[in-house]
Amino acid sequence: MLTEAHIIEAFKKHFPITGGIGDDAAILPLSETESYVITKDILIEDVHFRTTYFDAKHLAHKALEVNLSDIAAMGAQPKYILLGFSIPPAYEKYISSFNEHFTQACKDRKVQLIGGDTTHSPAKLFISVTAIGIAQNSQLKFRDKARKNNIICVAGNLGHAHLGLVACEKNLCDVKDFKPAFLSPQAKLAEGLWLAGQSSVTAMMDISDGLFIDLQKLCRASQLSAKIEVSNLINTPEFYSTCSWLELSSIEVQLTGGEDYGLLVTVEAGNYETIAENFRAEFGYLLKPVGIMLDEPRVQVHLVEQGLPITLDLKPFSHFGEEP
Amino acid sequence: MLTEAHIIEAFKKHFPITGGIGDDAAILPLSETESYVITKDILIEDVHFRTTYFDAKHLAHKALEVNLSDIAAMGAQPKYILLGFSIPPAYEKYISSFNEHFTQACKDRKVQLIGGDTTHSPAKLFISVTAIGIAQNSQLKFRDKARKNNIICVAGNLGHAHLGLVACEKNLCDVKDFKPAFLSPQAKLAEGLWLAGQSSVTAMMDISDGLFIDLQKLCRASQLSAKIEVSNLINTPEFYSTCSWLELSSIEVQLTGGEDYGLLVTVEAGNYETIAENFRAEFGYLLKPVGIMLDEPRVQVHLVEQGLPITLDLKPFSHFGEEP
Repeated sequence: MLTEAHIIEAFKKHFPITGGIGDDAAILPLSETESYVITKDILIEDVHFRTTYFDAKHLAHKALEVNLSDIAAMGAQPKYILLGFSIPPAYEKYISSFNEHFTQACKDRKVQLIGGDTTHSPAKLFISVTAIGIAQNSQLKFRDKARKNNIICVAGNLGHAHLGLVACEKNLCDVKDFKPAFLSPQAKLAEGLWLAGQSSVTAMMDISDGLFIDLQKLCRASQLSAKIEVSNLINTPEFYSTCSWLELSSIEVQLTGGEDYGLLVTVEAGNYETIAENFRAEFGYLLKPVGIMLDEPRVQVHLVEQGLPITLDLKPFSHFGEEP
Repeated sequence: MLTEAHIIEAFKKHFPITGGIGDDAAILPLSETESYVITKDILIEDVHFRTTYFDAKHLAHKALEVNLSDIAAMGAQPKYILLGFSIPPAYEKYISSFNEHFTQACKDRKVQLIGGDTTHSPAKLFISVTAIGIAQNSQLKFRDKARKNNIICVAGNLGHAHLGLVACEKNLCDVKDFKPAFLSPQAKLAEGLWLAGQSSVTAMMDISDGLFIDLQKLCRASQLSAKIEVSNLINTPEFYSTCSWLELSSIEVQLTGGEDYGLLVTVEAGNYETIAENFRAEFGYLLKPVGIMLDEPRVQVHLVEQGLPITLDLKPFSHFGEEP
């Protein structure tokens, strides 16, 4: 099966650069002190969204935010947007509304829409956004800079978007509180910039495909293993009760649920307490410590519960497998 | 009917910038002497190509070149590429081959693939390329800088890609010589850079939607009218005989045929002779003078034949109308 990872590996052989293919965004040199970072994300009807429950406002918002999340994860401030879309017949009203809301969303985030492309689509609505930000070179964060014994931390909720997805797909009124996490995620721009400014934050990426899969990517990039303590995956009472009501494992949902767009960072162990304290003072919530980076011959992500190894049959999220 | 022009106008109200929405590419400030230019183009199966006659090599080549053409039209040197695609089931072999050829095409053009996105597609193959180039600020060319009495010139063939499209769609062996113009267009990179270096070249854009439509865009941007002398639309003997054989008007095909990716420039009248002479010395073919810019109360494109007004029922190319 041809996965995105295979494709990235094939391209990397030919274009080996740091901060390029494989990171959340690529780097364009700007000056001695600054760089542009650039990313593109595609959203496709009936793969990433359904118009049955994504109204044009939600979709416009999400199309922008998932791209801004990549910019945030590099430690950059978003600046410019290019918007491409391919429109099926009879979508005129939806797209007019989408454009209005996308324009407003760009203004709200103080990013400038500078170009794009518009075409007809034979069937599905297809959205392709390119986002460009500016980062201080000294504060750029990559996936390959995690070090042994770094604390693995998560900024943001895990699994909420997954419950929102289930609520939307199954039209469950009782789970409606989680729908916004899936329909209208907010990129952690302020947190990304703040974390980028901390020298003891060694690596950063956003969590779009689920913690377990995304941490594997960070491990491969840094050539280190990781250990997740699942009892540190703390969540809200509503999350646990909803998982229980839906007969879902709260641990599995937090490990594999995609589209939360939180930030995954590694922090030098000796500075974690200070960073976490300052983070809470700044943002009012916990920078969750969920594990530790390990140096092992074979790169892998271990799961432990109260320190004891556990095995879970986690279904990896794949763009090429079942639809999310 | 919602056209691309309507969408661009709506966005321009909110983001009024020069060299942005409406030009071939947008500008990102780089330094006092240089700018990045950035563009994105989408190619969709059964709208822009059919896999029945586009093999993976042709498609990879074309996906790159149509984006490089936008970079060339700004007077820039292409540098970086981001590649996004959405892959339907059972396209693995096609995409593996596409990736190989796209990688090679990037190397041949000395551009670096720095990132992208890969997703599953429910049905059609979608390709979304973002290209980034670097231009000297003093040589950047826009659409809105044409002036009254400028000579309208075309670098490249008109209508060849259209005959190639007809040959592919109707599987006509007798017209096979025109297929490469449609399947494997070459962006006029060297010409674009050379023309950008000429101060008497006032405006430049690429011809992707057909001369008549693209000249209208240049006219609207420059707030001038234009007059095309159709007897100056000179072409090859094979072109005329093929149009005749296919019972197509050679003038209409040259005016409305899309996807040739030539360059449309306006040149100060007093310097046209010198520019054209030097262009021929450099590139070995004629920089065709096809008309003149006019200052009129209502912006429009006039057609004349031997100086006398003619009226043709030209079907404008539209991404939202019939498929090309």
